[in-house]
Amino acid sequence: MVHDALDECVIDGLQYCNWSQKVFDQMRASGVVAVHVTISYHENFRETVSAIIAWNRRFEIFADRILPGRTADDIHRARAQGRTAIIFGSQNPASIEDDIGLVEILHRLGLRIMQLSYNNQSLLAAGCYETEDAGITRMGREVIAEMNRVGMVVDMSHSGETSTLQAIQLSKRPIAITHANPFEWAPVVRNKSARVLRALSQSGGMLGFSLYPLHLRAETACALEDFCAMVARTAERMGVERIGVGSDLCQGQPDSVVGWMRAGRWTKASQSAISFKTPPPWFCDNTGFVNLRTGLRAVGFAPDDVDRILYRNWLDFFAASFSAAGTVA
Amino acid sequence: MVHDALDECVIDGLQYCNWSQKVFDQMRASGVVAVHVTISYHENFRETVSAIIAWNRRFEIFADRILPGRTADDIHRARAQGRTAIIFGSQNPASIEDDIGLVEILHRLGLRIMQLSYNNQSLLAAGCYETEDAGITRMGREVIAEMNRVGMVVDMSHSGETSTLQAIQLSKRPIAITHANPFEWAPVVRNKSARVLRALSQSGGMLGFSLYPLHLRAETACALEDFCAMVARTAERMGVERIGVGSDLCQGQPDSVVGWMRAGRWTKASQSAISFKTPPPWFCDNTGFVNLRTGLRAVGFAPDDVDRILYRNWLDFFAASFSAAGTVA
Repeated sequence: MVHDALDECVIDGLQYCNWSQKVFDQMRASGVVAVHVTISYHENFRETVSAIIAWNRRFEIFADRILPGRTADDIHRARAQGRTAIIFGSQNPASIEDDIGLVEILHRLGLRIMQLSYNNQSLLAAGCYETEDAGITRMGREVIAEMNRVGMVVDMSHSGETSTLQAIQLSKRPIAITHANPFEWAPVVRNKSARVLRALSQSGGMLGFSLYPLHLRAETACALEDFCAMVARTAERMGVERIGVGSDLCQGQPDSVVGWMRAGRWTKASQSAISFKTPPPWFCDNTGFVNLRTGLRAVGFAPDDVDRILYRNWLDFFAASFSAAGTVA
Repeated sequence: MVHDALDECVIDGLQYCNWSQKVFDQMRASGVVAVHVTISYHENFRETVSAIIAWNRRFEIFADRILPGRTADDIHRARAQGRTAIIFGSQNPASIEDDIGLVEILHRLGLRIMQLSYNNQSLLAAGCYETEDAGITRMGREVIAEMNRVGMVVDMSHSGETSTLQAIQLSKRPIAITHANPFEWAPVVRNKSARVLRALSQSGGMLGFSLYPLHLRAETACALEDFCAMVARTAERMGVERIGVGSDLCQGQPDSVVGWMRAGRWTKASQSAISFKTPPPWFCDNTGFVNLRTGLRAVGFAPDDVDRILYRNWLDFFAASFSAAGTVA
């Protein structure tokens, strides 16, 4: 089933699948017209370019299914043509190394979203697992301004609280937390405090609700109803315009990938015992968006608000975010 | 004096100046609306990206004078706005290393022209100073096809004769020799045989006449009249549609630069005795185009043909060359 302009559409604020025709077909069947995909974690610039080259190959091979997502227009085109716009993101600023000039270079190559830190201290900000968070660094302030200038979204999903609050304040354009949930619902380090979510919503930013098992109450056993009720409570606090989904779907990845995510090259400690958790049965792949849509309606969201949460809020946010400052997408 | 849409315009097929406001102002004053600039010789990919970053800084600082030249539309825009479109080129395929995927990456970053070899054997072709020329390599054939696909001009200015003839034949889109002169006029290794020039013109390619002293008859002492008479003879053989200027102007460069051009990192032999030759007095910088225009008229070219040689032939060639195969610029 190919979605057309009248169907219900989805934009996912984050995925890192083991990309294949199967995944692209599931996206298309589920109305996923755009997805923010992770192209690098600890990869340096050259390695990130290799990841883009791998995507360029996929854009050739699967030209009937996917296209590069660089502007909101690309998302509209994907929707009209029954394809999926692929929006590049880095989960860690390792891709820009120590060179602010690489922000513009990577933007030109399609990078539209970059996290300022990933769990650990980076050159720009503290990560959420550091015991101390000294906030945005000198280089971090410069890079935020440069990201604002060229049109690259600041993402603080894996950053520390102080760094996140400062990034919200320092950035002249609204930022995103593409994949996390409220801490009070599932109290793990990666989820976000009420203070952060308030500052995020007041600044016009976006929260993408995560479906990664470790970010869910009861993990794999999390009930769809419980998740959707949490979305409803968050909508009341943040405003229904400020929320979307960032599923963090890691479909088909071998466990070695989660080892790379966590350990990169910064530790020699063995990651061999680490494995991906099983996702909840109602969200194992992109076809799970149908369940999510049903669940959101069941907790009382009006159809227009469901459309906002699953599609339009990210669309509006990306349209306002991806072009150079002072221009329109 | 700012040129406008009615003035006489120039496109230069190659320069490698020590870029400065002075050079940009001279371009503007001389109606140079576009110039192919060398961004790398022996620089690897990462170093080439650093050269692009340096240009991105210039595009910010000198936004009123220059803009990135990625399409023929950018040249029209430059002309209308009294600016100069800067078209990136590599003189050597060192910038793509051994990775064909970097062709599309560098095209996306603005690279529109690449030489397949520079004096020496490369991974793709033989250089003009090798004693043996085995022609286009296995990788070379793949890279020519990829350059054809994305819209990057094959330039054989510094390549060997066999490699050049094969490149002309293998490329599905016309190629260029951006900066060289006929061998029979000035018999140096870098200049091109009648056979090469015939094959080039018959395939719809372009020759840019060089003003680099070592490519001129009598070098620095070359007379404007002699140069222009050579242009007239070449026009008769190749057709006036197939020729332009690629001045190879290296204004303001220290002699260490010519050492880098010649020796890169491939030899330890000292280049300290090497220096740039003094250019002929009638072409020391971009203001020399006025002399060239006068000289071309003096040898009998009609005004429309002078406009072709100094501007329109490169414009038409770039318009047909810079977009993906099957699309229009």
